[in-house]
Amino acid sequence: MIETDALVVGCGPVALFLAFQLGLHGIRAQMVDVQDEPGGQCIALYPDKPIYDIPTVPVCTGRELIQNLLRQVAPFAPGVYLGLQVCTLACQADGRWLVTTCQLASSALVRPPPPQFLARTLFIAAGAGAFIPRELPIPGLSGFVGRQVFYHAHVSSLSLANQNVVLSGGSDDAVASAITLAQSSTCRPTSITLVYRRDQLPASPDGLSHLNDLRSAGLVRFVAGQILAIQTNTTGDTLTGLVVSTPAEPSLHLPVDALLVYAGLSPRLGPVAQWGLKLQSKQLDVDRETFATSADGIFAVGDVVTYPGKQKLIVCGFFEATQAAAAAAARLWPEQPSALPYTSSSTLLQRLGVGTG
Amino acid sequence: MIETDALVVGCGPVALFLAFQLGLHGIRAQMVDVQDEPGGQCIALYPDKPIYDIPTVPVCTGRELIQNLLRQVAPFAPGVYLGLQVCTLACQADGRWLVTTCQLASSALVRPPPPQFLARTLFIAAGAGAFIPRELPIPGLSGFVGRQVFYHAHVSSLSLANQNVVLSGGSDDAVASAITLAQSSTCRPTSITLVYRRDQLPASPDGLSHLNDLRSAGLVRFVAGQILAIQTNTTGDTLTGLVVSTPAEPSLHLPVDALLVYAGLSPRLGPVAQWGLKLQSKQLDVDRETFATSADGIFAVGDVVTYPGKQKLIVCGFFEATQAAAAAAARLWPEQPSALPYTSSSTLLQRLGVGTG
Repeated sequence: MIETDALVVGCGPVALFLAFQLGLHGIRAQMVDVQDEPGGQCIALYPDKPIYDIPTVPVCTGRELIQNLLRQVAPFAPGVYLGLQVCTLACQADGRWLVTTCQLASSALVRPPPPQFLARTLFIAAGAGAFIPRELPIPGLSGFVGRQVFYHAHVSSLSLANQNVVLSGGSDDAVASAITLAQSSTCRPTSITLVYRRDQLPASPDGLSHLNDLRSAGLVRFVAGQILAIQTNTTGDTLTGLVVSTPAEPSLHLPVDALLVYAGLSPRLGPVAQWGLKLQSKQLDVDRETFATSADGIFAVGDVVTYPGKQKLIVCGFFEATQAAAAAAARLWPEQPSALPYTSSSTLLQRLGVGTG
Repeated sequence: MIETDALVVGCGPVALFLAFQLGLHGIRAQMVDVQDEPGGQCIALYPDKPIYDIPTVPVCTGRELIQNLLRQVAPFAPGVYLGLQVCTLACQADGRWLVTTCQLASSALVRPPPPQFLARTLFIAAGAGAFIPRELPIPGLSGFVGRQVFYHAHVSSLSLANQNVVLSGGSDDAVASAITLAQSSTCRPTSITLVYRRDQLPASPDGLSHLNDLRSAGLVRFVAGQILAIQTNTTGDTLTGLVVSTPAEPSLHLPVDALLVYAGLSPRLGPVAQWGLKLQSKQLDVDRETFATSADGIFAVGDVVTYPGKQKLIVCGFFEATQAAAAAAARLWPEQPSALPYTSSSTLLQRLGVGTG
């Protein structure tokens, strides 16, 4: 059980700036995110795209934005728990919130058992929700997730030497994973097969050209077709093959020890939507001054909230985080002034660890 | 008469980001500021102090912050009018606002006549107000301001060769000006006298050590005393001397052709306070969704506004600017959607001049 003054659900840009603002107020935050790395949508959806509307930053990529926020929050050393989804919420007799987490099957990170938190204040900065990998709708497949089936996995985190590996998908990440596997010198699979429903892959020209070289060299096999069914051993506890329908062959058999699925990510608010907080059009209804939700001690900021005039922009989330942190500080320490001094004041410089020069 | 869709009063960090946000919405702004350079308090009060709480910027100085904001807004090329105070405001029959300006006597910039603006929307981003130089309370002095008396002037903008120059003040800018004058090879004054009420000057050690060298070399005279009165020629139209009370001499006479006063800057909301907009504790009362004031088409953002939970932080001003720009866009072009697409969209990339790659 991890006891904390502040638990932040989400680790995107707004959540990171919230942890920074909490730090300025002297509150150390714990953070939980469903993704395997910090950054939210910036990392999941547009790590390399330029962003132009962050104040004082004429241009930066999603990844640079997150790197800078991580550097900014570093002096406050928030605890960061990744690859975990928040599950249940329960109010304790002392007013604290008990939050349980569960590990996502699609996460490459292993952390048994998933931690539980007891938090005096809780912040939902979950963005558009968890970006959950889309599942392949194939009967029986789900039973092998995490053992032989991996969704949007980083291949470097898997041991695939001497295995028959099938990758399903045609996007950049599917192609990049196939290339990485084919080029691995230490843990080369027995076979690498990329399956996509069409001949034309929607990946970048560079990736495709690299993939074609590997196909010519016999290192990667490409199959245009649809995965229809799985095959298992007689006891049903090991995935052994896939049945694929192609234009030439209605039921092609592919041996498989590991199936890596890249079918895209889709946002889902998940369990948070079931927590009984007041919602409006599937977003959390918040007070515009404090960004408090309808539950005592629970705040919400960023794309997950709505209020009159709400714009889903990162700059607005930064403001919301600033307001919520001040409101939480006032709640945690009612006797202290909640207005933050300017960051050049000596107290804050001490907290930031930059001396008082 | 300068006709514009948007006139921004102020040119501090929030005003600059507002002009950027207006630009994203396709609205070109005109900006007026009382200071001789853009940057508001960041430049007037702490150009070299580190700031730690700008989102995604772990640390920057006030000057760097402004430089980055100027770079960010550059693609939208706002018109910037400096050294000018807004004076009168009048609503026209067509709903536009007529704003007159006047040149500050303390400004080193010359711009006759001061421009007038006819604006469809008006934004007050005046911060704590104009940082107006504190005046010396000496009878008759005000009549010489701009001719022989200069408040917080940049010495490089004045012609002081062969003049008896008295500088009043003991802060860094007073000391730096005395040093600059004493080192000038082209326009050396006949005499340079620094007057401060105490022996100990509140300037930095470096400046003081440099000043002491110049005093030893006979290039600068220092007088610890209080300026009591002025002396003029017989017609009273030329300032000729000052009467200073010192511990040793109750009425020391100093000849003077030019008096440079460095008595500090003090914020004043100025004429804006007389415009009839709804105020609360000397701050403009705004709608929290649109940041509209009580007058149709006039918005206000930054330190000049108040609303429940208002924190005087730059990050909050950035949010307010974002909201006000969206509300103004909706007012100017009611037929268009006011929600801004993400900056990677092609329309905005075109406006930013960065192509659609």
